[in-house]
Amino acid sequence: MIDDINFLLVGNSRLHWAENLQSKYKFFHTQKNNNVPQNINLNNLIWASVGKLPDLSLKQENRISTQDIKLKNLPNHFGVDRALGCLEALKIIENPSRKDLLVADFGTTLSITKLTAKGSIIGGQITPGFLTQLRSMEKYTDNLKAPKKYDIPVQDFLINTEDSMLKGVSNSLMGVINLSFNPAKDILIVCGGDSELIGSLLKQKKEEIIISPNLVMQGMITHFNH
Amino acid sequence: MIDDINFLLVGNSRLHWAENLQSKYKFFHTQKNNNVPQNINLNNLIWASVGKLPDLSLKQENRISTQDIKLKNLPNHFGVDRALGCLEALKIIENPSRKDLLVADFGTTLSITKLTAKGSIIGGQITPGFLTQLRSMEKYTDNLKAPKKYDIPVQDFLINTEDSMLKGVSNSLMGVINLSFNPAKDILIVCGGDSELIGSLLKQKKEEIIISPNLVMQGMITHFNH
Repeated sequence: MIDDINFLLVGNSRLHWAENLQSKYKFFHTQKNNNVPQNINLNNLIWASVGKLPDLSLKQENRISTQDIKLKNLPNHFGVDRALGCLEALKIIENPSRKDLLVADFGTTLSITKLTAKGSIIGGQITPGFLTQLRSMEKYTDNLKAPKKYDIPVQDFLINTEDSMLKGVSNSLMGVINLSFNPAKDILIVCGGDSELIGSLLKQKKEEIIISPNLVMQGMITHFNH
Repeated sequence: MIDDINFLLVGNSRLHWAENLQSKYKFFHTQKNNNVPQNINLNNLIWASVGKLPDLSLKQENRISTQDIKLKNLPNHFGVDRALGCLEALKIIENPSRKDLLVADFGTTLSITKLTAKGSIIGGQITPGFLTQLRSMEKYTDNLKAPKKYDIPVQDFLINTEDSMLKGVSNSLMGVINLSFNPAKDILIVCGGDSELIGSLLKQKKEEIIISPNLVMQGMITHFNH
């Protein structure tokens, strides 16, 4: 491991950083228009991108692209974040019964990617993520406003409009998982910015699932160090 | 029934019309910036709205609002479309075992509204609808484009990006229903522009559900005639 190498994933909504603190990494997120964080040297910054590039002098030779990731049947058009998440899931998941892995990344979109225990990509699904769904209702309707607080109601049927939206959106994300995840055959790993919010709801209903918010950033480090 | 009375619901994305053809109604939809359809006289047009009003001379005294609809525990802030759908569901559904009714309106949003057999509103959920979800992924990401064709893949896990989006979005909508609909206790009625697309998928998995695309417009006619 090279000491002063840091990592950046340019997402659709935010910048995701892994700062090398010698013995371990600190993961954090910034807005796209923020300045480069302290202690981050752009010359030694390994980066990847799925979103619009920020106004930073990122070195092209330090870029990781989907084509660089060693997974079987990985299509070049898959986002590099999906590839990195799969790579890391293969590395960290104990999988003695050789189940398929289902990686669910709760970000701007929810991307679900299924792969075999041998690391061969099967395919996936993509839906709008938690905030994207809430914002879309504000954008495409005349009367709805995206809630500012994200307390998911326990009750199933709500009277208050914001509660109804929060419950609907969390059910839509959980519902996609329910239709894709077969615990008898798959191991589910959830990652991304909303993985703790939705993952904790999933855990209430499902047997073991693995919540690993920084899976993709860890995958970048893993890829770089091998 | 008064012969030359026609009906309009101003939705978020489109205008929904019921044209009185003496013995029955013709239901059709137009874009918001289209001209008034032939044979529609604005003076005799009964209307309701949940979206931005089009540039038409709609008569205020011909407007139906949520407050006008006779349902128990109906909150004034509920969209009039939800109220009208519930009113019509109560009228048309044979319900000898007095189950609750679950009205799912697949439009710009998917609104789910649950009410008792006696017509008392319990509450609901709201998520982005089929097209809203597809459009939101184009809007809030850098690389995704909303598909132009809407053939929902049969396979669960897809390699092609548009297929992955279509499967993800249809699973998200079906998933919300799965989490809300208990066939032992509820009767599910689906309506709205995408009710046939998603309803046919739901029918493959679920016992009896009722697909009634024009439920809300029929509710307007029912409300007016009583």
